Amino acid sequence: MLYPEEFDVIVVGGGHAGTEAALAAARMGCKTLLLTHNIETLGQMSCNPSIGGIGKGHLVKEVDALGGAMAIATDEAGIQFRILNSSKGPAVRATRAQADRVLYKAAIRARLENQANLSLFQQAVDDLMVEGDRVVGAVTQIGIRFRARAVVLTAGTFLDGKIHVGLNHYAAGRAGDPPAVSLSARLKELKLPQGRLKTGTPPRIDGRTIDFSRCEEQPGDLDPVPVFSFMGQARMHPRQVPCWITHTNERTHEIIRSGFDRSPMFTGKIEGVGPRYCPSVEDKINRFAGKESHQIFLEPEGLSTHEFYPNGISTSLPFDVQYELVRSMPGLERAHILRPGYAIEYDYFDPRALKSSFETRQIAGLFFAGQINGTTGYEEAAAQGLFAGVNAALACRGEPAWLPGRDEAYLGVLVDDLITKGVTEPYRMFTSRAEFRLQLREDNADMRLTEAGRRLGLVDDARWAAFGRKRDAVSRETERLKSTWVNPRNLPPAESERVLGKSIEREYSLLDLLRRPGVSHAALLGMDGGRYATDAVSRETLGELHDAVVEQVEIGAKYAGYIDRQKDEVERSAYYEKLRLPDELDYMQVSALSIEVRQKLAKHRPETLGQASRISGVTPAAISLLLVHLKKTRSKGFAQAASSQPA
Amino acid sequence: MLYPEEFDVIVVGGGHAGTEAALAAARMGCKTLLLTHNIETLGQMSCNPSIGGIGKGHLVKEVDALGGAMAIATDEAGIQFRILNSSKGPAVRATRAQADRVLYKAAIRARLENQANLSLFQQAVDDLMVEGDRVVGAVTQIGIRFRARAVVLTAGTFLDGKIHVGLNHYAAGRAGDPPAVSLSARLKELKLPQGRLKTGTPPRIDGRTIDFSRCEEQPGDLDPVPVFSFMGQARMHPRQVPCWITHTNERTHEIIRSGFDRSPMFTGKIEGVGPRYCPSVEDKINRFAGKESHQIFLEPEGLSTHEFYPNGISTSLPFDVQYELVRSMPGLERAHILRPGYAIEYDYFDPRALKSSFETRQIAGLFFAGQINGTTGYEEAAAQGLFAGVNAALACRGEPAWLPGRDEAYLGVLVDDLITKGVTEPYRMFTSRAEFRLQLREDNADMRLTEAGRRLGLVDDARWAAFGRKRDAVSRETERLKSTWVNPRNLPPAESERVLGKSIEREYSLLDLLRRPGVSHAALLGMDGGRYATDAVSRETLGELHDAVVEQVEIGAKYAGYIDRQKDEVERSAYYEKLRLPDELDYMQVSALSIEVRQKLAKHRPETLGQASRISGVTPAAISLLLVHLKKTRSKGFAQAASSQPA
Repeated sequence: MLYPEEFDVIVVGGGHAGTEAALAAARMGCKTLLLTHNIETLGQMSCNPSIGGIGKGHLVKEVDALGGAMAIATDEAGIQFRILNSSKGPAVRATRAQADRVLYKAAIRARLENQANLSLFQQAVDDLMVEGDRVVGAVTQIGIRFRARAVVLTAGTFLDGKIHVGLNHYAAGRAGDPPAVSLSARLKELKLPQGRLKTGTPPRIDGRTIDFSRCEEQPGDLDPVPVFSFMGQARMHPRQVPCWITHTNERTHEIIRSGFDRSPMFTGKIEGVGPRYCPSVEDKINRFAGKESHQIFLEPEGLSTHEFYPNGISTSLPFDVQYELVRSMPGLERAHILRPGYAIEYDYFDPRALKSSFETRQIAGLFFAGQINGTTGYEEAAAQGLFAGVNAALACRGEPAWLPGRDEAYLGVLVDDLITKGVTEPYRMFTSRAEFRLQLREDNADMRLTEAGRRLGLVDDARWAAFGRKRDAVSRETERLKSTWVNPRNLPPAESERVLGKSIEREYSLLDLLRRPGVSHAALLGMDGGRYATDAVSRETLGELHDAVVEQVEIGAKYAGYIDRQKDEVERSAYYEKLRLPDELDYMQVSALSIEVRQKLAKHRPETLGQASRISGVTPAAISLLLVHLKKTRSKGFAQAASSQPA
Repeated sequence: MLYPEEFDVIVVGGGHAGTEAALAAARMGCKTLLLTHNIETLGQMSCNPSIGGIGKGHLVKEVDALGGAMAIATDEAGIQFRILNSSKGPAVRATRAQADRVLYKAAIRARLENQANLSLFQQAVDDLMVEGDRVVGAVTQIGIRFRARAVVLTAGTFLDGKIHVGLNHYAAGRAGDPPAVSLSARLKELKLPQGRLKTGTPPRIDGRTIDFSRCEEQPGDLDPVPVFSFMGQARMHPRQVPCWITHTNERTHEIIRSGFDRSPMFTGKIEGVGPRYCPSVEDKINRFAGKESHQIFLEPEGLSTHEFYPNGISTSLPFDVQYELVRSMPGLERAHILRPGYAIEYDYFDPRALKSSFETRQIAGLFFAGQINGTTGYEEAAAQGLFAGVNAALACRGEPAWLPGRDEAYLGVLVDDLITKGVTEPYRMFTSRAEFRLQLREDNADMRLTEAGRRLGLVDDARWAAFGRKRDAVSRETERLKSTWVNPRNLPPAESERVLGKSIEREYSLLDLLRRPGVSHAALLGMDGGRYATDAVSRETLGELHDAVVEQVEIGAKYAGYIDRQKDEVERSAYYEKLRLPDELDYMQVSALSIEVRQKLAKHRPETLGQASRISGVTPAAISLLLVHLKKTRSKGFAQAASSQPA
């Protein structure tokens, strides 16, 4: 049957990508339908019970700055929060939380159920409706045909999913869930460029059988407990609990090696490539044969369960090897495994076949997000989901895509990396992937993105008001510090010694003093009996926002120099970065370029010179030659843009 | 691999039968393993979000009296409680609760995770290990072989499960879950007598799209809010919410009829027989063509969801018909369906092939419980699960089976009905199935069963202590009432008028007075300035137990006559009822019986005369003839027993 109502956007899949995509499109006012094979698994954390980490936490904060659900759901579900790299510079500081799986799922489902413009429907999707080169809807397992103007596919590991444990394997979308076989076959028919990847998960352990006295306790940050969302508050958090650390040892490694001959990875049973930065334990033992021990984190799966997730022993070794390897570790001598570890192989599609909006080039209106694009990680999935949801909504409105730059957001880095470089293994985010990482910090994700989110219709009034108060307070306080002067005459030497470590020899603004290492905003405001304090940035006036405002003021002062230098660099690069390449350009005719480079450019058809420069094999020299060619031929719209090149 | 540890009892399946079976075996000290395809779905309510009702509530209280989980989990998860038939006699009064699905699942999982002697393991079971005619374990999907001395199979609707919506169908164990195909094939190989049944579920509705102003509100009992468990307290309950009522109408019925030609039931697509007393809406319209309207209950699925369960429109009609029929009802004109209704067909096994312990006759150590035995309903499943778990544990101990009589428990009725009569459609419990229903009440389930449960090792110290206090208080108070005399001299006429409606003309014990209709225990104790009150049964002394004690005392007094008469009847029947039939008896040689009866007895081989009498086609006359035959031939052990026959 044809469903009687038509939708703007259909999102297929209810994981981290699908939920952010559906919520984003609905926030933007699109009539949105989320199709999932099982409403009960909406927002399920299929692998580790944690959100965030370096690079990943940055993505979560960006999703949050754009009104997404992941950060605030984590605030409601998080049972341990830590700021990683807290002793390092603010650019690489990152939030990481352990989440209670049940609470997390509940938090996500509550948001989905309460989102205006969003309907849910439970049925696996078996087919897409395609008319000409345009998608017009999706067809469920029992033949219900839902029409829509755009479809966002977030299939996770479900497309032709195949679970491996040792030499045994069976079809599944995830342990306990059926695979999406028909849809996989249909996408192959559509001749989208498809490949296979694999990912894995460790065996889970009954905490009642762990001897914690033989493990090292790893508590979260408790004073204060961090929050994830810009709208989050520590009082939203449930009870906080520690993680535990144990280690592999030589015996563990021997046991693992003894299973190599029955490993689906090493015997060629698994074709798909796994995530380099989240490798299986057998991979680690194989690649780093010299390492005598690996740290294993025992992460609690929730407050209402004894289940533990041993982070670091993801494996597809036979179950007998899993059993022995777990029990070879201190504290786990009598451990009972609740669920076996496994690897799963699944279809992904080459993201270089996507436009920079994540719309497929072949089928108009069809967007891909999450693992289907070759990524790994909840956070990468959520960020892509939000991005695809926004662009699907914009496409419905007939508006141009929203494309945050690499200098604006990790989301920009993620999208750009995927569509220009493609993947050879599941892609995860790192701060090292961002060339402009000094300005792409967790703490300023709102300053970078919330205005754009508001313009797009992603940010609700409450968030917008809070953001406005924060931004204004930061700016007012920065101005005040800049125009408040202190000199040797009005600052008693003893006070200067106490706060600054030495007396001042000339006049300084408070902002100048704040730039000094080790001088905090609080210290300056406490100087000389509090004469430089102000009600405007007091805890009483700003409430929950106080610490965030002070943090922005401090970081703004202390890192201004570095950030300004990076900004110059960004501006210099931006010209070329954003220079659009003519659609009609026939690269095969650009004789100055090598045949290899011509072929690569012809294949990938980058949209900008920046994208072109990141295609593997396209050298800086080739880019210069291309630029010369374009100027010479005065390609349409290009010569004019090129003439406004900055000095 | 062979799993290195051996278990006493393995339970396959984590639904209502499986969880009670596993908990019971573990409470009895058996080393127990629960195998489930998905730990996340342990305790899932696959169909309606409610527990109890007439006959069913009785089973839940019995499971509770034996230390089971269902009642107390309902107390923790129940968002509406009602006493049905509260104006009728106590025998047919029953508790019914709406449960929050998420809270219910959490309550069950918490019990499973915290039960001593019980381990969980997540893997679908594909095979049984059978040596000779004995089961010795189970084999999972990835080939892990778990050895055990007994296996309880509680497969629900998963065995070769097939979902139908209109003329579409696909393999599934339940919406969103994969079916158990390999295990079904294996059981067929073992040549257990198998058949197909079907059950169904209605479409689910987004409460945000229901116009409740057009529905009738149905609140729960709020003063007081009932509790389910004998260990339950109203303060355990979460927030209470109402249900809503709407109705089908002539247009609804027309829409339904218009789908008959695409109904899998009416076109022969479904072979399995559905539950007579929980029919699909198309079945109702078909069978009761004259009825103009049916009541539909809109049951909330939980506190954290907007989802509603429209009880009364279970259907496997095509989705377009579901869509229209839902929207034809008042309040549902704009209803959004979240999940389609569907029918599911699955394998069951003829319960007449079970011993009265639920062990299969063909394969020693293999027990069946729940829908696999041809029943329907969470409560029927839970009761059977507990029963099979107990008997699997007793078998491991080498002890005889525990077989509660039809006069002791609905559980006895359920088991006896199944093993003697078999099923032709999914079996559900009714009070009318119990010939001794005056004494099989909800209120005295603990009095009937908790002592047996304690002996079996099912009842923990806390429950045992509470039960002892209650039983003793009831008995002391009953004795006191019996020995406290009131006569016209010591009871002022005015007081007598007020409390009893008239003055007394001779001496009565308080117990005599309590037998009078409309005279409550509280009224007697408040008589004459409270001179007949006692601290022993005061609210202060008994606390939570107070109301239950008073209820038992009252019912004991008021219904003693009826109950005594029924007891006599039971005793008279009991002799024949429990008379064991000789194992070596060759029915085909009992020439006094018709060939049909001989064949039936030879086929079913009843264990007792009572069972024989309930085999369909075995008439009371045939039973008399059989009895004569047995006495005449002085069958071993029979003549002796027969000689002690009561007058």
